[in-house]
Amino acid sequence: MKHYIGIDLGGTNIAAGIVSEAGSIISACSDRTDAAKQFEQLVSDISDTAYKALSISGLTISDVTAVGMGTPSCIDPKTGLLVNANNLNWRNVPLVSELQKHFPVPVFVQNDAACAALGEALTGAAAGYENAVMITLGTGVGSGIIMHRRIYNGCDSMGAEVGHTKLVHNGRPCTCGQMGCFEAYASATALIAQAREAAQKEPSSLMNGMCGGELMKMNAKIPFDAAKQGDNTALEVVGQYIDYLASGLSSVITLFRPQAVIIGGGISAEGEYLLGPLRKKLYRCTFAAEQIGIPDIIAAKLGNDAGIVGAAMQCVA
Amino acid sequence: MKHYIGIDLGGTNIAAGIVSEAGSIISACSDRTDAAKQFEQLVSDISDTAYKALSISGLTISDVTAVGMGTPSCIDPKTGLLVNANNLNWRNVPLVSELQKHFPVPVFVQNDAACAALGEALTGAAAGYENAVMITLGTGVGSGIIMHRRIYNGCDSMGAEVGHTKLVHNGRPCTCGQMGCFEAYASATALIAQAREAAQKEPSSLMNGMCGGELMKMNAKIPFDAAKQGDNTALEVVGQYIDYLASGLSSVITLFRPQAVIIGGGISAEGEYLLGPLRKKLYRCTFAAEQIGIPDIIAAKLGNDAGIVGAAMQCVA
Repeated sequence: MKHYIGIDLGGTNIAAGIVSEAGSIISACSDRTDAAKQFEQLVSDISDTAYKALSISGLTISDVTAVGMGTPSCIDPKTGLLVNANNLNWRNVPLVSELQKHFPVPVFVQNDAACAALGEALTGAAAGYENAVMITLGTGVGSGIIMHRRIYNGCDSMGAEVGHTKLVHNGRPCTCGQMGCFEAYASATALIAQAREAAQKEPSSLMNGMCGGELMKMNAKIPFDAAKQGDNTALEVVGQYIDYLASGLSSVITLFRPQAVIIGGGISAEGEYLLGPLRKKLYRCTFAAEQIGIPDIIAAKLGNDAGIVGAAMQCVA
Repeated sequence: MKHYIGIDLGGTNIAAGIVSEAGSIISACSDRTDAAKQFEQLVSDISDTAYKALSISGLTISDVTAVGMGTPSCIDPKTGLLVNANNLNWRNVPLVSELQKHFPVPVFVQNDAACAALGEALTGAAAGYENAVMITLGTGVGSGIIMHRRIYNGCDSMGAEVGHTKLVHNGRPCTCGQMGCFEAYASATALIAQAREAAQKEPSSLMNGMCGGELMKMNAKIPFDAAKQGDNTALEVVGQYIDYLASGLSSVITLFRPQAVIIGGGISAEGEYLLGPLRKKLYRCTFAAEQIGIPDIIAAKLGNDAGIVGAAMQCVA
């Protein structure tokens, strides 16, 4: 049986796992990402974490067919160059060739959200689907597009950035420097900002008590919790959020027509309370939904494992 | 040498041509589309037009390898069923099997804008590009996405409808029944409506004279003509139009990262007067344009021939 190393590099943690060719994690290990370190040093840390996971599994590097990594960034797979990773302060670094110094097997690198999508599509929420789109609702809006059970990321591999499609012409500023991006309306960050603003305007909202009167303690769970208790302000915040989410997703569906849309990130823990209204709104706001329907809308299942599994599975041709 | 029949079915005209395997039109013929006719009768008219083109070429059906058709509609290529064509009042008609009664060779059917894109990508404005997106600015906004020199139209072949991605959340009503679609802002129809409204508000605008004082005579060329003469109202209308066009296209670029975006339809005759500002705006409003650039933005070249050539070339595997 073949084995792969899957590495999920985040701004906070390096997670690595040994993954079977069927997509099961055999062993895993995680370390802190020290973003202050030099590029070469951080790659060395990544390698250490991967070899620790390997050692836990009882295998050696000669049992490994390839190494796959996901990173939160733009990567050019033709050159192995990482163009830009904001969280890591990396710009135009030769990521693949640096990793290759540590591993005597082929190394593949992809966007982390694309890896998570591949993991969910092959062994998680969308196992059995040929074509799926995954949206991760977190600090930003990550996205991965799976076509024929492989990652699709645009003709030059720099695309498929769903979070940076326009949702509102000349709308809210986005962290990317543009205006009106889907991410500026559908990320957990955007939900928290809206909840804060609404709670401040409406002192009687349960959301105020739920963050102990300190609006800086607002999180993405609070508006949902308050809405479930019938708090009108929270109901409005959550309703508006799902509206935006549906509107942005409708564009992706209209272009790609995947069989499934997987919702990941912390907010996906709301399950049917989020997905039920989202399906209804998507059905209403998506082009030709009456004639041709909408994809299955499902919650991610693998959590953080998706990134490791997908990173490894990108190596499987 | 192989030959194909390419048919471009529009709401107004049926155009058919005999196309060489290199993508040259050998002969062509066109007839009026009588949308009042029954489905079977109209398919019979289509066949007549195709056989007339064949007769002009001096070839016979035994010289033809396959027939390809483009129609303005949603088509399911797996079943050969045309789901919906508003202009023709067709819904759920077995288009391929009806066409197949007239042609003893394989018949293929695609969306017409996708065919036009394929024609331009193989032998027109984007010849030499592997991956391109074409946008046709007309009554609506047609679109075709070419990946690896083939039509891409979504995982279930019902997608790639760029005109119906959302540009303005809860924005202007679109003919499709949804709100805020790209088409409602970037079609020639939308430009004409904006020009009319602006000319009415500003009686001194040159646009009023250019349509002989009858705003119903406004067309998409008038605001451009008046803008070229320095008319401020027209400059504003055209500037706003190009803003919307750039904003909508930026999403398509962010997802697909094609090498070229081809602009077709009557408005593309404005050439650099449209494309110059469009490039500048795209560079400013597209995610990561500074790091990874924007695609080449070029005008369509083949005019109406693109539909015939692309319809035929879809038959070439």
